[in-house]
Amino acid sequence: MSEQWLTSLITDTPQEGYELAIKLSRMGVKYTQPSDEIRAKLRPEYGEDANGLIASSQVIAINFQTVSAANNYWKD
Amino acid sequence: MSEQWLTSLITDTPQEGYELAIKLSRMGVKYTQPSDEIRAKLRPEYGEDANGLIASSQVIAINFQTVSAANNYWKD
Amino acid sequence: MSEQWLTSLITDTPQEGYELAIKLSRMGVKYTQPSDEIRAKLRPEYGEDANGLIASSQVIAINFQTVSAANNYWKD
Amino acid sequence: MSEQWLTSLITDTPQEGYELAIKLSRMGVKYTQPSDEIRAKLRPEYGEDANGLIASSQVIAINFQTVSAANNYWKD
Amino acid sequence: MSEQWLTSLITDTPQEGYELAIKLSRMGVKYTQPSDEIRAKLRPEYGEDANGLIASSQVIAINFQTVSAANNYWKD
Amino acid sequence: MSEQWLTSLITDTPQEGYELAIKLSRMGVKYTQPSDEIRAKLRPEYGEDANGLIASSQVIAINFQTVSAANNYWKD
Repeated sequence: MSEQWLTSLITDTPQEGYELAIKLSRMGVKYTQPSDEIRAKLRPEYGEDANGLIASSQVIAINFQTVSAANNYWKD
Repeated sequence: MSEQWLTSLITDTPQEGYELAIKLSRMGVKYTQPSDEIRAKLRPEYGEDANGLIASSQVIAINFQTVSAANNYWKD
Repeated sequence: MSEQWLTSLITDTPQEGYELAIKLSRMGVKYTQPSDEIRAKLRPEYGEDANGLIASSQVIAINFQTVSAANNYWKD
Repeated sequence: MSEQWLTSLITDTPQEGYELAIKLSRMGVKYTQPSDEIRAKLRPEYGEDANGLIASSQVIAINFQTVSAANNYWKD
Repeated sequence: MSEQWLTSLITDTPQEGYELAIKLSRMGVKYTQPSDEIRAKLRPEYGEDANGLIASSQVIAINFQTVSAANNYWKD
Repeated sequence: MSEQWLTSLITDTPQEGYELAIKLSRMGVKYTQPSDEIRAKLRPEYGEDANGLIASSQVIAINFQTVSAANNYWKD
C-alpha cells in the first residue's frame, strides 16, 4: 500500500486510541481484500451477524492492547 | 463517534475495571454496527447461544487484560 | 451489577489464581446473559460439546494471564 | 476442586513448562465439565477433528505464554 | 524453509511494522501449506468471506503486537 | 512425552524464532493427538481449508510472541 495511513501509535486520549484500534482492525481487512467493492458487499454479512460483530470487537480489543501499551495507558 | 465515552482506563476497583472491560467490548460492537435497532435484533442471537456467550466473555477477558495493566492490577 | 464479587486479583496460590480466572470467565457470561434460567439451559450446550469446552478453557487461559501477572506469578 | 494440582508455575526446563501449559489447558476443560465420563466421550470429537486440534494447540500456546513469563523464559 | 525472509523485527515506521505483521501472518499460512497452487485456490475462500477477513485481521493484530513491542512502539 | 524436543527458547535469528514457534504449534497438536496416523489423515483437512490455515497461522503468531519476548526481540 503506497498510501500513508499510520505514522504514529500515540493519541491524546484513550477514546482516540480506541478509534485508532478500530482503524488498525479495518486495515487488516483492507490489506487482505483490497477491493472496495467486495468489502462493501461483505459488510452486511458480519455487521448483521452476531458472531461477526463479536469477532470484530475481539480484533479491536487486541489492537487496543497495542495502542494502550504504546501510550502507557494515557497515565503520563 | 462524536460522543465522549472513554476518558480514562483508571478505575477504583477491579470490579469497576471489569465493568469497563465490558463497556469496551460493547463499544467494539457498536462502532461496527451503529444501528441500535439491528444490534437489538441480534442480541438474542448471541445471548441465548452458548458459543456467542463464550466468545463475548473472551472479548471481555482481552479488554480486562488492558484495563488491569493500566491500573497496575490495583496493587498501588 | 450491584453485587460485589471482585475486590482483588491477588490470591495466595496459583491454583486459587486459576480458580479466580474461572470465576472471571463465568462472570463474562453472566454479565452478557443475566438470566440464570437461560444460562442453565445453555450449559449442556457447551459442557457436552468439544468445541465449547476448548473455547471455555481458552477464556480461562486469557484471564489466568491477567491474574498471574497481577500476582507476579506467585514468585514473591 | 478440593484436590491440589497447581502449586507453582516454575519448571526446570522449557519442555516441562510446555507440559505444564498442557495441564493448565486440560484443567480448564475439566473444571467446565467435571464428569470424567462425558469428557472421555468427547475426546475423539476434537482429537480427530482438525479444527479441534488447532484450537487445543491455541489454548496451550496461551498458557505457555503465562508459564514462560513466570520462568523468565528460562534465561536465569 | 531455506529462503531467508525474516532478518529483523525492527522497522522505521509503524506502517512498515504493520506491513511486516501482514508478512508474518502470510508466512504462517505458507509454512502450513507450502503449495503455491493450493494457497492460490483457497484465497477467494477467505478473501470473499466476512469471517475469513476478520480472522485474517486478527492474526495480523497478534503479530502487530509483537512487532510493536520489538520497536518499543516507535517511541524512541 | 519422554522424547526431549525443547531445551531452549533462544534462537540466533528472528526467522529461527519463527520456525521454533511453528514447532511449538505442531507439538500442541501432537500432544493432543499422539497418533501419527490420525494426524496424517487430518492434515489435508486444515491444509486445504482456508479457515484451518488462518487458525494455524494464529497459533504460530501466539507462540511467536513468546519466542520473541524470550529473545528480547533479537535486539541485543
